[in-house]
Amino acid sequence: MAAQVVTLPPSMRWQDGRFWLLDQRRLPGEVVYEEQASAAAVAQAIANMTVRGAPAIGIAAAYGMALATGAGEDRERAAATLIAARPTAVNLAWAVKRMLAAADAVAEAQAIHREDAQMCQAIGASGVQLIREGCTVLTHCNAGALAVSALGTATAPLYLAHAAGTGFSVFVNETRPALQGARLTAWELTQAGMDVTLICDSAAAHLMAQGEIDMALVGADRVTANGDAVNKIGTRGVAIACRYHDVPFYVAFPASTFDPETAHGNDVVIEERDSAEVTGSIPTVPGIRVRNPAFDVVPAELVTGWITDRGLMTCPGELAAALQPGAARCM
Amino acid sequence: MAAQVVTLPPSMRWQDGRFWLLDQRRLPGEVVYEEQASAAAVAQAIANMTVRGAPAIGIAAAYGMALATGAGEDRERAAATLIAARPTAVNLAWAVKRMLAAADAVAEAQAIHREDAQMCQAIGASGVQLIREGCTVLTHCNAGALAVSALGTATAPLYLAHAAGTGFSVFVNETRPALQGARLTAWELTQAGMDVTLICDSAAAHLMAQGEIDMALVGADRVTANGDAVNKIGTRGVAIACRYHDVPFYVAFPASTFDPETAHGNDVVIEERDSAEVTGSIPTVPGIRVRNPAFDVVPAELVTGWITDRGLMTCPGELAAALQPGAARCM
Repeated sequence: MAAQVVTLPPSMRWQDGRFWLLDQRRLPGEVVYEEQASAAAVAQAIANMTVRGAPAIGIAAAYGMALATGAGEDRERAAATLIAARPTAVNLAWAVKRMLAAADAVAEAQAIHREDAQMCQAIGASGVQLIREGCTVLTHCNAGALAVSALGTATAPLYLAHAAGTGFSVFVNETRPALQGARLTAWELTQAGMDVTLICDSAAAHLMAQGEIDMALVGADRVTANGDAVNKIGTRGVAIACRYHDVPFYVAFPASTFDPETAHGNDVVIEERDSAEVTGSIPTVPGIRVRNPAFDVVPAELVTGWITDRGLMTCPGELAAALQPGAARCM
Repeated sequence: MAAQVVTLPPSMRWQDGRFWLLDQRRLPGEVVYEEQASAAAVAQAIANMTVRGAPAIGIAAAYGMALATGAGEDRERAAATLIAARPTAVNLAWAVKRMLAAADAVAEAQAIHREDAQMCQAIGASGVQLIREGCTVLTHCNAGALAVSALGTATAPLYLAHAAGTGFSVFVNETRPALQGARLTAWELTQAGMDVTLICDSAAAHLMAQGEIDMALVGADRVTANGDAVNKIGTRGVAIACRYHDVPFYVAFPASTFDPETAHGNDVVIEERDSAEVTGSIPTVPGIRVRNPAFDVVPAELVTGWITDRGLMTCPGELAAALQPGAARCM
């Protein structure tokens, strides 16, 4: 399926048994690929955010398992190391468990990668009709090509609408503390030729009040059985502000991000990251105490629609029926 | 009235006809006072945020008028230059107009400064009972001693509660883009010995969801006749998140910040500042378009209480009656 409509540098490459990751921490200043020689190296790259974004983490971990298999390492130990690298993203454990069950590790990792690109295309097809001529879309963090593969998740409807000639503009939240919006989303959407405006996270509610935002569209690191979406810190605030201003809020993600075994978003342990992410690049009081939760929860009641590779869902029941394991696959 | 309970460096000094401003852009790294030799210099210092915070701007402008008077400058022209320096803060025009009507310029500027310190004390007295043992308070931007004089506005209840031995903690929003929370509020509250935790602005909604925030307490640059509060960008999002999580939201300000001639917050023109404030210190796409609104509006319906130098008000009608010009002064 699917002619590519974007020609961005891919977030990772596998060739002849060797594996490279694009170091996303150095974007947009430098486009550098670092070879990852072992599953442990891949786990470290996941932990330090060389590669980030739930689906991309899953694919990278799959290639990490392929490296471990090729090197004759203990596959169970490699799996445990990879799964421990980031606790929140459900794709990570999903991909690693699938790799443990595979006979041909390289073929399985490549299949995971290829299926991910197809999922992005299907997500785009589910959401493209929401992007109307003249509209303004707010996004937060990076659920783009860099976070996933091919078209990304939250960005897939945007890429398809742009390719179809729809005129629209995008407000990108800078996404403190790690600035994925400013560094990654603003970069990849600008590269694709879209009309992009960068804002501080705290400006979104004001722009909604001014009537300047028509919809919000974000990705998810995990979506629980009841439709709650766990995503980058700040997403909850966006969703609450959308509700207050009657702005539709959409979350886009593939089936692999859906976690039917977790009942509610509040059951997900939220990773708290190093305070240096917050204080490292700003003037503040030396040694000040910091809280740095990496994710938050958007309650299903604040979600207008769930844009998935199996269609656009508008209620949690529909979502659970379509995405639970064993449900019919539309694509 | 009022023994000082804090001994912070003052935000400005007047002595023997000379005027110095603490350069708040260099805090917390350096504590540097710059002499301001003319009204035009003071206007520039207001525009470039050497001095910031609505009451402090008003006091500085008053001293700027005293400098113009002493130098035999055209007072009307000096007034116009000062008023044009920041369009949003109502205190600026209020102080300058008062100076235009005064016979003794230096005595009038010192009176404005002294009355401001008394107002801070009165605001503290109105709000101190809200700060309960064991509670956690969220604040945004800097409405502290640095922004005002003496105890500050939003910080005045905190300073008085701390001085009274109440144990509480404070979450400080870093306050992008200019980071007044990280640079100024975190610094002055830490200096005073309070229990302070710095967070990214986007983390506040998550902490509320976790039940970790008991109240929000912010300042205001202008409060309109209906009780809407115009304050630093991001305050609206805090207030909306407070409502969603049933967290009380308080705004603290002196009578001089109340603007009975403007009906609604939406009637206030919101200053948009230079994009370099957003992009100057972060990695992003060179030349990217930016929107940088400096303030936003908290609708009165989201305000639990207005903490003023004339008491704690809990409805807009009460506020207008107490603060309109000519209303009886309680202090």
